[in-house]
Amino acid sequence: MALLSDLQWRYATKHMNKGTVPQEKVDYILEVARAAPSSSGLQPYKIFVIRNGSALQRLKEEVFQDYPFNHQQIEGCSHLLVWAAWDKYSEERVGRVLRETTAARGLPDSSEPYKQRLLNLYESRGKQWQENHCAKQAYLSFGLAIAAAAELRVDATPMEGFDNTKMDEFLGLGDSAFKSVVVLPIGYRDEPSDWLVGLKKWRTAKEEFITAID
Amino acid sequence: MALLSDLQWRYATKHMNKGTVPQEKVDYILEVARAAPSSSGLQPYKIFVIRNGSALQRLKEEVFQDYPFNHQQIEGCSHLLVWAAWDKYSEERVGRVLRETTAARGLPDSSEPYKQRLLNLYESRGKQWQENHCAKQAYLSFGLAIAAAAELRVDATPMEGFDNTKMDEFLGLGDSAFKSVVVLPIGYRDEPSDWLVGLKKWRTAKEEFITAID
Repeated sequence: MALLSDLQWRYATKHMNKGTVPQEKVDYILEVARAAPSSSGLQPYKIFVIRNGSALQRLKEEVFQDYPFNHQQIEGCSHLLVWAAWDKYSEERVGRVLRETTAARGLPDSSEPYKQRLLNLYESRGKQWQENHCAKQAYLSFGLAIAAAAELRVDATPMEGFDNTKMDEFLGLGDSAFKSVVVLPIGYRDEPSDWLVGLKKWRTAKEEFITAID
Repeated sequence: MALLSDLQWRYATKHMNKGTVPQEKVDYILEVARAAPSSSGLQPYKIFVIRNGSALQRLKEEVFQDYPFNHQQIEGCSHLLVWAAWDKYSEERVGRVLRETTAARGLPDSSEPYKQRLLNLYESRGKQWQENHCAKQAYLSFGLAIAAAAELRVDATPMEGFDNTKMDEFLGLGDSAFKSVVVLPIGYRDEPSDWLVGLKKWRTAKEEFITAID
């Protein structure tokens, strides 16, 4: 029952102390994020990692300019992880993943009909749906990374408050398949400066959160 | 490093054996899902739980009619969990969560300006954005529930293939604030009948999944 107590330990750290998270812990968090399941196994996202230093300083000024309430974590974190997801499904990308999956399993490549079925489905839902669908998969991975950090007693702050267009420019995403989705500074809490650390966590009451149908 | 090995143990089970997951394990998985963080702590979703029995049989026929490839898990699972998320942010819902959070923390209620800031932001993004934003939070919880099941060595199959409109009708969501998002049958693998159980898991190569910027 470690996962639940890890989640109860964590909180959205508001002030970090510039402590450095050892590389093997960063690697572990990223491995958990990479192990996350995704729709049809397409894993339509990737992660950028920016260590605290001059690049992160520039990122703070360019991408978080209008989000001053998120500056403390950017300044005090050890690393910033940025999830970027596909902005749509393409024949090339879907085909490649399915071929690689089949090859990894040592099976003859028979993924063509499945690829067509998926592409037809995605096509029928439209571009905006596709972008959101890819981003949802990234959120699933994002949640697991938060849990992985907590397991290692590394603090982390799930954050959506930044300028996505400027983030995409900063990451050089340009005409690539990816768009930034969500970010996670990881590091260590600065307790005396953190207004949230001592406050109770609120969640929807169990009776309201869960409805059994029998 | 339990979380990573739990995720490596799991796979999207294709055939379950009708074994029953003990209630305390179901409760644990739901508690983990409830402990998930969400944007501004609003937790804009809930979970329906349908035990294998006549209601689930009816659900299979009404909601999964056009998704025969997902029938095996519905027939063989112990419980089906359904995440349903808010279809938009409303003043009433946001205000209530912020008030309850403040009260749980024993603080005087000063949530009004924050509520207005959030509502203005959501309003500016539009209804479709709001629905997707709520669903993304549900996916984060969904991912943690998958990990919780794996921790208990309970199998689970993340599934999006069902008729959302019919699911909403089945759940009686009607004019409520909620719309179905994603489902998770939990139970136990039926190894001899499961074509996926022995196959290698594919993920994007580490070098491609992660880009460091220094």
